[in-house]
Formats: sequence, C-alpha cells, structure tokens
Amino acid sequence: MKIAFQGEPASFGELAARQFYGDKKEYIPFPEFQDVYDAVYNRKVHYGIIPLENSLGGSIHQNYDLLLDGKLSIVGEIYLKVSHYLLSNKNVSRQKIKRVFSHQQALTQCKKYLSKFPYITAVPVSNTAAAVQMIKEKKLNDAAAIASMQAAIDFDMRVHAKKIEDVHNNQTRFIMLSKKALTIRTRTRRVKTSIIFATKNIPGALFKAMSVFSLRDIDLLKIESRPFYGRNFEYMFYLDFEGNNYWKRTQNALNNLNEITTYYRNLGSYFVGEIAQPEYKIRK
Amino acid sequence: MKIAFQGEPASFGELAARQFYGDKKEYIPFPEFQDVYDAVYNRKVHYGIIPLENSLGGSIHQNYDLLLDGKLSIVGEIYLKVSHYLLSNKNVSRQKIKRVFSHQQALTQCKKYLSKFPYITAVPVSNTAAAVQMIKEKKLNDAAAIASMQAAIDFDMRVHAKKIEDVHNNQTRFIMLSKKALTIRTRTRRVKTSIIFATKNIPGALFKAMSVFSLRDIDLLKIESRPFYGRNFEYMFYLDFEGNNYWKRTQNALNNLNEITTYYRNLGSYFVGEIAQPEYKIRK
Repeated sequence: MKIAFQGEPASFGELAARQFYGDKKEYIPFPEFQDVYDAVYNRKVHYGIIPLENSLGGSIHQNYDLLLDGKLSIVGEIYLKVSHYLLSNKNVSRQKIKRVFSHQQALTQCKKYLSKFPYITAVPVSNTAAAVQMIKEKKLNDAAAIASMQAAIDFDMRVHAKKIEDVHNNQTRFIMLSKKALTIRTRTRRVKTSIIFATKNIPGALFKAMSVFSLRDIDLLKIESRPFYGRNFEYMFYLDFEGNNYWKRTQNALNNLNEITTYYRNLGSYFVGEIAQPEYKIRK
Repeated sequence: MKIAFQGEPASFGELAARQFYGDKKEYIPFPEFQDVYDAVYNRKVHYGIIPLENSLGGSIHQNYDLLLDGKLSIVGEIYLKVSHYLLSNKNVSRQKIKRVFSHQQALTQCKKYLSKFPYITAVPVSNTAAAVQMIKEKKLNDAAAIASMQAAIDFDMRVHAKKIEDVHNNQTRFIMLSKKALTIRTRTRRVKTSIIFATKNIPGALFKAMSVFSLRDIDLLKIESRPFYGRNFEYMFYLDFEGNNYWKRTQNALNNLNEITTYYRNLGSYFVGEIAQPEYKIRK
C-alpha cells in the first residue's frame, strides 16, 4: 500500500501518516500538497495525507480548496503534536553553535527559546529535514538545525535540547484522502462527517442551516465561515459534525440542509481522530 | 501620532497601516506581534496593527490569542491585497538571475511562477524587505528578491515582473488596536462588532448562541469555532456581526448571549473595512 505525503522524509506529514497507517506501508514524498492530491486522484498511491488545520495557525484554506471539486474523500484524521528539537553534528558542543537552520515557521515557533542565545543567527531554509541534511553533509561545526526527533534519529545527530517550541501542545490536524469514500457500519467508535456548503445571502441563513442539525440533536464539532473574497456578503462554511453518511438521521439532516444551500460538498465520514505524539523509530 | 507594526519598513503591515491612517503619522517597526501589542498597552504608541486572517491561510489564532485578555480593543480594519514583485539591482538582466531571495511564504505563493525558471534557486530569508536590502547592500548581480512594490521604490530596484503570485486576490485582513474602545454614534457607515466566547458543552449550545442574533435579525459576518486543544469538546468561538456596542439592539443580543456563555470578550465596534490595493509612494 502506497501513501503520499508532502515534504521530505521525516517531515511531520510522514510521521502523522505512519502513526495512522503503521510502518509496513510505503511512504512517498511529493513536493506540493497539490501533488499529493494528484497522486491519489491518478491512482499512483492509495492514500494521501495533508494538514487541514493547526492549533496556532488555524484552518489551511489552501488545502480545503483542494477538496472543493469533491473528487476525493476524507477517510481518516489524526491530530499530531508538533515538537521541535535542537540538533547538531555529534562533535559540536552547544557553545560552538552560532547559526541555526530550519523552516521559517519552526524558527518562529522557537523564537523565545532562541532569544536566550542572542549570538545565534537564525537562518531559514526550505524545510526542517533539509536543514539537518545540510549541516550533516557540509559537516558544519558551528551550526545546528531545528527539526523533529525523527530527523535526529535518521541523520544520527546530537540532540542539544528537546521540545524547544514556545507554545507547547501545538497540534496539527492531518486528514487521509482516498478516491473512495468510507462506508462505516460499526457503531463502536465515534464517527465524524465533514461538509462544505454555501447559503444564499439572506439574514439568518446560517441559523437555518444550524437548525437542521440542532433539531436532530446532532453535535457540531467545527464550524467556520470563509468569505468568498471579491464577492461581498457571500460565504462558504466548513462544518464537521458527529454523524455518519450511512445513518438515516445524518441523511435526513443533510437532505434538509440541501434545501437552503447554493453549494454543497460532502467530504466523507470517518472515525474521530486521536491526538498522537509522534513515535520515533530507528529505521534503515 | 505613532503607530506600531510588525516587520521591516515597507512590510505589508506598514503598507496597510499607512493606507488606513495616511502618511502623516509616525510608523514604528517592532520584531514581533507581541511587541506591537505591548507597545500599545504600555502607551509607547497610539495604535498598533496586526493581521488577523488571510484569504489563503485562514485565521491567525496566535494573533487572536493576543486579544484574549481583553485589554486592547479593535478600532478599525482593512483588507489589503497582497501582490509580489520580482526585483533586482538595476544592472541585472532577467537572464542573469540564478537565485531568488524572499520570505518562505512569499516563495511558496510564487511557486508556479518560479517553476518556469528551473535554473533559479529559491532561498528563504527572514522577510521580504530584508531580501531586497541584502541583494542591494551586497550588490549581488546574479540574484533577485520577491517583495512588495514599495520595497522596489524604497530601495530603487529594477522591477522584472509584477504580481507574480500564483493565486491572485490574496487578501490579508489587518486590524487596528487601541487601549480605548470606539464609541460610534454615526449611522452613516456599516459598523461591525467582534466578540470571542465559549459555551458550555451541551448539544445545541452554539445554536442557542446563534439564535440571540437571528431573533434580532442581526447579520453574522464571520463565525469560527476553535477547539481548546487538550480539553475535549470545549470550544471557543470567534464571531463578527453587523452591530454596534452603542446600539440598544446589540446590547440586548449580547446580554442575552451572556446568559449561556462560560467565557466572553467584546473586542470592540468599528467601521467595516475597505478592500485596498496598497498605494506605493516615493518617500525619503
């Protein structure tokens, strides 16, 4: 079974996918999220993983946009805790570190930590794993990288400091994409359904949309409006709720909703995801 | 009057603030958004500007978090269209460009454009204006920067290509912060009010919260749930609606809402913002 992720090996996308599908699958890196989508759509892989939201940065609209054509379905999710580590080559002591390489976002997330060492220059590079690879290959002895613990293991680096991110409990929600929607018949685990819809611009339209769920005691797990930029007063909504496309009650609610929507996509039903610490493993 | 923004001069934060307050004010750069907040709170400046959401990236939860203590109020907003330009030193022809420096996000936003020139290496640096300054100071003749048109003017650069971002109509919503909330008595312009609240975790709690607005025909402009990570089933909501804290109808709705919230912050009332193209000016 082949699973597509974006970024370099040991990136958080791969860690999340391995946590979800286990180590016996084949994980294939792609440069862009669009490439992950295309690989699934063109059947080059069975599944693809993309991040959809982050506890600090919010929903990633660009990745929601990939789902708008309705050709792929969400078949699973996982919330990955993101932690950063300060890594260097084995022979480098902490005092020798004058430069720190990482993705801009990781550097930003570790800003308070780095400010304790004012003589260290932060240097952005394209991604965290590439930073480790670079200081390893160039044998830099005045440099460190900020990356995942998996990168430390894969590249056999010295770990100077663990979990150096300023805000702990930073989580990224990843979803698994497939060409085929799930049909979930079991009632043993909580099931979530995700939809995207737009309503006519009439006062209270959203209230009416909510009522189709409220009337049926269906719990909402996420709601978010997104303006159609350039088109004033027009909104798209992301909605996740406790429900299953296989259940009659969910079907009734969604049929009801469709009476008042101008756009509607069902992204699929899947088991509510776990919050996971990445598991770090020694691998070949 | 002094206004704080994050980043370097000619950054989008400064452009947005100048668009809003005009050129006759003093604009002061700070390294972090937290510093902008502190400068307003400690009365070092009169106003501060921070981005709150982006049409591609979504809401910036980290900046919403700055508002949670309720000590500063939103007193204005502007939606700035973000466009990128390919700039170099005056003597550099397009064919000579082998490296392009910019903020990682700008490089990502221009990926399709850059892919037309496979021999060009994209190099991330800490921000767009710093990229221009660097190629200028080092007199690089094989390099370009991706930055705003204002940076092109400020540093007197050659403009090779305009609006090279892959997705046009990319907008960032900036808000103006002050220690003192606005009291808006006029009815000549649309007024928006922003609140943050949490409800008890009972089915339909959000539906009830919506109903206090719907019953009074108050239009919602933005709604977004945000999970309290680590605390299952607890949510915070961002809500913008057409209303004015000075109006009785708004006060009634909010009093009503407060009967069912477990947390509530009123972020202030302010005029609905314009969508603005940055105006580029020659300045000393």
